[in-house]
Amino acid sequence: MVTSRWEAAPARAAAPRRRGAVLERAILEAALEQLCTVGWRGLTMEGVAAGARTGKAAVYRRWPSREDLVEDALRAGFSPVEEAPDLGAVREDLLALCRRVRGAMFSRPGTALRAVIHECDPDQEERLHGVIYSAVVEPTVRLLREVITRGIERGEVRPDAVDDYVLDVVPAMMMYRSKMCTSEWTDAELQEMIDRVMVPLLRPAGP
Amino acid sequence: MVTSRWEAAPARAAAPRRRGAVLERAILEAALEQLCTVGWRGLTMEGVAAGARTGKAAVYRRWPSREDLVEDALRAGFSPVEEAPDLGAVREDLLALCRRVRGAMFSRPGTALRAVIHECDPDQEERLHGVIYSAVVEPTVRLLREVITRGIERGEVRPDAVDDYVLDVVPAMMMYRSKMCTSEWTDAELQEMIDRVMVPLLRPAGP
Repeated sequence: MVTSRWEAAPARAAAPRRRGAVLERAILEAALEQLCTVGWRGLTMEGVAAGARTGKAAVYRRWPSREDLVEDALRAGFSPVEEAPDLGAVREDLLALCRRVRGAMFSRPGTALRAVIHECDPDQEERLHGVIYSAVVEPTVRLLREVITRGIERGEVRPDAVDDYVLDVVPAMMMYRSKMCTSEWTDAELQEMIDRVMVPLLRPAGP
Repeated sequence: MVTSRWEAAPARAAAPRRRGAVLERAILEAALEQLCTVGWRGLTMEGVAAGARTGKAAVYRRWPSREDLVEDALRAGFSPVEEAPDLGAVREDLLALCRRVRGAMFSRPGTALRAVIHECDPDQEERLHGVIYSAVVEPTVRLLREVITRGIERGEVRPDAVDDYVLDVVPAMMMYRSKMCTSEWTDAELQEMIDRVMVPLLRPAGP
């Protein structure tokens, strides 16, 4: 039996009666915890209820299936999108953005998401790709667009660089290297990627 | 029961007694066929033996486990690496290379590989990543290096473009878009990617 941060405390005293948002949050956190420990195949509604110190009925009342519960747990786990970095230079803004993406990839929900996506069937996978897309990729691309647009306004970046393919390069490189090299990105690697790929890709063409 | 190209013919007549390389090839092809139809979880040594019109012992004699068999079947499925394209312009060479990568990704072994990698456990996955790396990625990167080096010699490409990060951009983009958009790359998309990302990334910097 895994003892987690939020299971340990209530075990010592009787859990207070929680309702609404508080109970919901406890269930979603217990679901993420199950994903990280026993994975998608091991996750049960009973296990999640036990982790959240509630009954199975409380879980089923909100989420009719494991799939619904896991999708909500993952979505709730990722931080809401922040403002685009604005440090006065496109290189620094890109680096700050890449650090955020790395943070999301290796956060608890990011780890859970990667665990699940390797275990599930194609239908579930499509649903989870939707979660990755809307919770991680889409906000990242939106911020990249903002950062690159400001670079164009400053004359640092070529005017035609706001382009769907160009905007895909950072997420593509980050996903590819973490899949192929199964390594987390170090700060030095992020800087190298930006200096060797993004800076030459974005700079204005010679006359 | 799925009837495939190489099952259909021997069914009509008694299968001739095959040995060595011929039998081995039939077993490897039957394994690929099983992966494409019933997947990794459904694949059995019995099923492969039946598909290859041989006995289970003939399979086990060569491959002690499902993992060994599948790894060999995938490796054997990918074509040996050809020469780098040499069409006189880096843009055309890159396009020819990308078409080859697309061909490998959506070939029968490529499809089988993608099916398997979503079903297997992390140890098996690491092994399969090894197959992808040595059968698809590593040869592609080697050819990209050749194509870019020739572009530098022609003065088309900046001299510092032979760089590990730069060489990852094509495989990263191809993997990312086919995962995220779950679409095959059209020829128009390959051209757009090269014109909007690779050409600006590789061109010599302004003075």
